[in-house]
Amino acid sequence: MTADPREHPMWLPPHALQFLRGRPVVIRGADPLLETIRSEAADAGAVDRGERVDAGTPASTLLIVPAADAEEVWPRPLPVAGLRAEGFVIAQDGDRTIIAYADGRGALYGWFQMIRDHAGGERRSTPARFEPQQALRVLDHWDNISAHPVMGQVERGYAGGSIFYADGSVRRDLGRVARYARLLASIGVNAVTINNVNVGRREAQLLTDDLGTVELLAGIFRPWGIRVHLSVNFASPLDLGDLDTSDPLDERVAQWWSAATAQAFARIPDLGGYLVKADSEGQPGPHAYGRDHADGANMLARALEPHGGVVRWRAFVYNHRQDWRDRSTDRARAAYDTFMPLDGRFDDNVLLQVKYGPIDFQTREPLSPVIAAMKHTRIALELQVTQEYTGQQRHAVYLAPQWSEILGGRPFGDGGPPVSELVRGGIAAVSNVGDDAYWTGHPLAQSNLYAYGRLAWDATLDARAVLSEWMALTFGDDEAVNDGIHSILDDSWATYESYTAPLGVGFMVTPGSHYGPSVDGYEYSPWGTYHFADRNGIGVDRTVATGTGYTGQYPQEWAAMFESLESVPDELLLFFHHVPYTHRLHNGATVIQHIYDTHFRGAEQAAELPARWDALRDHIDEDVWMRGAERFAEQARSAGEWRDQINTYFWRASGIPDEHGRTLY
Amino acid sequence: MTADPREHPMWLPPHALQFLRGRPVVIRGADPLLETIRSEAADAGAVDRGERVDAGTPASTLLIVPAADAEEVWPRPLPVAGLRAEGFVIAQDGDRTIIAYADGRGALYGWFQMIRDHAGGERRSTPARFEPQQALRVLDHWDNISAHPVMGQVERGYAGGSIFYADGSVRRDLGRVARYARLLASIGVNAVTINNVNVGRREAQLLTDDLGTVELLAGIFRPWGIRVHLSVNFASPLDLGDLDTSDPLDERVAQWWSAATAQAFARIPDLGGYLVKADSEGQPGPHAYGRDHADGANMLARALEPHGGVVRWRAFVYNHRQDWRDRSTDRARAAYDTFMPLDGRFDDNVLLQVKYGPIDFQTREPLSPVIAAMKHTRIALELQVTQEYTGQQRHAVYLAPQWSEILGGRPFGDGGPPVSELVRGGIAAVSNVGDDAYWTGHPLAQSNLYAYGRLAWDATLDARAVLSEWMALTFGDDEAVNDGIHSILDDSWATYESYTAPLGVGFMVTPGSHYGPSVDGYEYSPWGTYHFADRNGIGVDRTVATGTGYTGQYPQEWAAMFESLESVPDELLLFFHHVPYTHRLHNGATVIQHIYDTHFRGAEQAAELPARWDALRDHIDEDVWMRGAERFAEQARSAGEWRDQINTYFWRASGIPDEHGRTLY
Repeated sequence: MTADPREHPMWLPPHALQFLRGRPVVIRGADPLLETIRSEAADAGAVDRGERVDAGTPASTLLIVPAADAEEVWPRPLPVAGLRAEGFVIAQDGDRTIIAYADGRGALYGWFQMIRDHAGGERRSTPARFEPQQALRVLDHWDNISAHPVMGQVERGYAGGSIFYADGSVRRDLGRVARYARLLASIGVNAVTINNVNVGRREAQLLTDDLGTVELLAGIFRPWGIRVHLSVNFASPLDLGDLDTSDPLDERVAQWWSAATAQAFARIPDLGGYLVKADSEGQPGPHAYGRDHADGANMLARALEPHGGVVRWRAFVYNHRQDWRDRSTDRARAAYDTFMPLDGRFDDNVLLQVKYGPIDFQTREPLSPVIAAMKHTRIALELQVTQEYTGQQRHAVYLAPQWSEILGGRPFGDGGPPVSELVRGGIAAVSNVGDDAYWTGHPLAQSNLYAYGRLAWDATLDARAVLSEWMALTFGDDEAVNDGIHSILDDSWATYESYTAPLGVGFMVTPGSHYGPSVDGYEYSPWGTYHFADRNGIGVDRTVATGTGYTGQYPQEWAAMFESLESVPDELLLFFHHVPYTHRLHNGATVIQHIYDTHFRGAEQAAELPARWDALRDHIDEDVWMRGAERFAEQARSAGEWRDQINTYFWRASGIPDEHGRTLY
Repeated sequence: MTADPREHPMWLPPHALQFLRGRPVVIRGADPLLETIRSEAADAGAVDRGERVDAGTPASTLLIVPAADAEEVWPRPLPVAGLRAEGFVIAQDGDRTIIAYADGRGALYGWFQMIRDHAGGERRSTPARFEPQQALRVLDHWDNISAHPVMGQVERGYAGGSIFYADGSVRRDLGRVARYARLLASIGVNAVTINNVNVGRREAQLLTDDLGTVELLAGIFRPWGIRVHLSVNFASPLDLGDLDTSDPLDERVAQWWSAATAQAFARIPDLGGYLVKADSEGQPGPHAYGRDHADGANMLARALEPHGGVVRWRAFVYNHRQDWRDRSTDRARAAYDTFMPLDGRFDDNVLLQVKYGPIDFQTREPLSPVIAAMKHTRIALELQVTQEYTGQQRHAVYLAPQWSEILGGRPFGDGGPPVSELVRGGIAAVSNVGDDAYWTGHPLAQSNLYAYGRLAWDATLDARAVLSEWMALTFGDDEAVNDGIHSILDDSWATYESYTAPLGVGFMVTPGSHYGPSVDGYEYSPWGTYHFADRNGIGVDRTVATGTGYTGQYPQEWAAMFESLESVPDELLLFFHHVPYTHRLHNGATVIQHIYDTHFRGAEQAAELPARWDALRDHIDEDVWMRGAERFAEQARSAGEWRDQINTYFWRASGIPDEHGRTLY
């Protein structure tokens, strides 16, 4: 292990702001966030020229002004008409730069866009207008205040403890949280949920006895335009209040929530709202009282509505005590079956938060059918930045290509809208940071946090370009680093997919930890995640014709595509169909040979990573390099283990040898 | 859950001693243990008649006298000549009973034999002589002082926390330990190891800074003839001392151990000795210094020798970082390969403690070959009372039949000595008690603790008779209870075997917890416990002819028997041979059909248990019954799960249907 260096600056190292030293800056406006920018400018060594722009204003001045002032201070027209909230226009004229903003957040985002532009060598001779596609861009922290006996302090956290909490309460030194807030603001994240969706007793008190902690953290995030959200426990009126029920239709319960909410907003007027995991994996919910999810969500929504808060209600609801013997129950169907009948019944300030796939953040899943189906509900899409199923920040897996594919999917066919437009309630993701020196365990996993913010802002950004942006900021202008890390990360998702569970079948991970292979680890479990491999074949028949009928939950275009063996994409074959090992893919290989080929190739690719990283040794800070080297060694080892276990399992099951005679055990 | 009643009395409830009320008793002797008996007699309401026996001594008097006095006080000759240590003779003449003892322990054991006799209706008109087969009969507690983050306070404990320790130190109220000591004395156990063989830092301090705890516990066990042993950490001179080594051939290390040992014996003069797990599963040992196990064990033995202590050195040494791909390494071979070359090199006060089988306390294993092979080493046999692999005290499994089979095995053929004679260093077992109200989780698991003591004393006792003894003491004279529990327990080991891993192949348990089925749970692990099942067959080829050569570690008689498919016992077939599913057993069934048959039958038998227990409801204390009812429900459920997972796995692998068309998934 390397010694922990001081906290890593992520993508805002001092050198990224060096260019601002001595730069004259004019900042106009009264929004409190302008103070943040003034302070940023001062820290960077810029020279504050006040608010006036006149003949004495130096040619190299940076102007940060309300959009309404653009015409006054800028020689040429700027596309500021109708600029939406959080938006800004950025332009350059010679050495002079303007950021014309819609509001305080717009100014802040413009500030950081300028820094990105500089690092990337981007000049805005043609003015550029920026507005977020999604109004809500939130990171959910699965942080516990009291460390959970099994899950630890950060559930599915692979980067140490919580940056918010230690020793059973909020940290005394919150300097790191402030730096985190700045980093998030720089990528456009505007909300943070400060506690785990699985809300323990201690964490539930954030809403009641421990509002001080929320107030404290909200005060740190506020100057960065970030609103704090709370995960709440549906049973709180019962557990923390004096009531004997948490029935959402009981007036006393509604009153309890209204009072608690009013109390919270009295102290944190910009509180964002609540995140709720109800009737899911053992969490309490409205079902105990014979009520449905709309009853539950609307009750909370009404408590929040007067204060401008939202409820994010998770659609991650399924039977987690399924009998593996029962092939008729299909976990993939659960969200649609539960929520589709409620479409249209949710209040306006309810967002239904839907994981991207119907199961659980697997390396490859089809899109959740709920997203296209629930036309009268505001859907928030949930991604997972923390790499629970994608290598746990020990494997380098750049997730932006996955997210691009999800956000760009068109469930109504090529002529229809992409997911990024179907989603009208924002984009959420589970955070990957902790109190690790590099924030994210694997230093390269910082790129996922960065890319999440960028794609949540604009889903059409190119994943590769975002990676270049991140590298330019983090490592400065170094072609070797740029090329080397592109060669490591560009195809890393595909590589990871190739050496883990094949063809969309998912899981095959070690139960509990979810790290490393275990082909049958969940096969006889109550969790509903099966592959049904036997000596003849593998896969889950989810067709309408002969299977669970899940394909029927999609719009016609995709339903037909997934239903037929002729048109189902290879990479999702086993998610939708049970086929013999001798079935031929569109790519011409049999399923069994494809398994062998991808696993030998994927592990081989992983085995090359240490050398690629090694080549960057003289280009990267030594501590960062050492941490990376440890991780790449582990990835290479683990990929070999995946290859051998998966190949051996299917060789033993099928009895079909590898066409190329490679080693099977 | 039932409310915890007060602590259960196990097999010494008040009614078992009722018959002593008002009984005149003469107790002669100065051994301190006689004081214990006087106190027992007083508690039972017996009338102390002092030491004299004369015409005024009532006819119904119980005489407890040294063997040398027997002739003086008893009208007929008694077989006391040459009575060995701990022995006694018991006889009755009309209402008068005599216990003629060799020493204090003999008197104590005679006292409890008399109580057993009474409960069982046994009259000793013909005098009976009792002497233990083994001088050392020890229970090893895997108790930690500091709860281990994964293993908890009692490693592989299924009955709550430690009765010795709580909150990081020795318990303040040790009343329960005293009652435990009495219970152990009543079954002839004469030693107890008070800490886990995996010795953590806190526990290692028992030998140094925390001798007070040892002294305290030894003082409680001493009146019951029980010596305390300590598990020690081989690296203590390095970890706790000032040394930079724990090399057993380094004079400073030897001196450290001598000094620490002398210090310990100065405070606990009857300390029994040390138990050591060295170079095993990550524990430190002599290998780090290029020394062997004899070097290590003898160094400790020499520190103990002046004080009369022994070293028990565990033979549980194997490569726990094995590569599952490597079929040439065979964990079963490890103890023999490691220790056989050292035979004859161990000092006299070294006992090599060997688990009964070559792997790890499985439901069915062949005898460890070390036991027959190491003729110049004192072997102590290690059994496991705690049901790690036999249902974890949620399944009712009476283990005495397994122990009888082990102890009665004759590795040199039917004319040779049984294991109980080959073993010259005593019998050890891992304890199954904790601070649970019933001591053992499942109330019926008390029978295992009882039977362990009885069989360690006399391996030839009949397991069924011992069970009757235990029931007569525990439940009193109730034919329904006797019949009912016999019907539950007599075949319980066989039943458990029938619904779990088949034909001696072992493991197939959930990794980590070891509870419940996971056919491939250890198949791709580094632990060396594989079954090598594929679509054609299953089992481990351990033959000399084509396998790992393990069979060659046995004496010729057993080597030949195990080597050949003609003569290998069915129940160990897959331990020794890899065979196709269509291979026919001696019982005529194919392997696959045998798997189906035993699993359907075993689960069916388990499903009948709740009803059998139900029938005893009015005969058994309600709290005890309730606890049992919970456990039987779980056993029935779990057995069904085993049946379905095992059968389904092999149906999917083999493709061979059940001859009787029962349900496979």
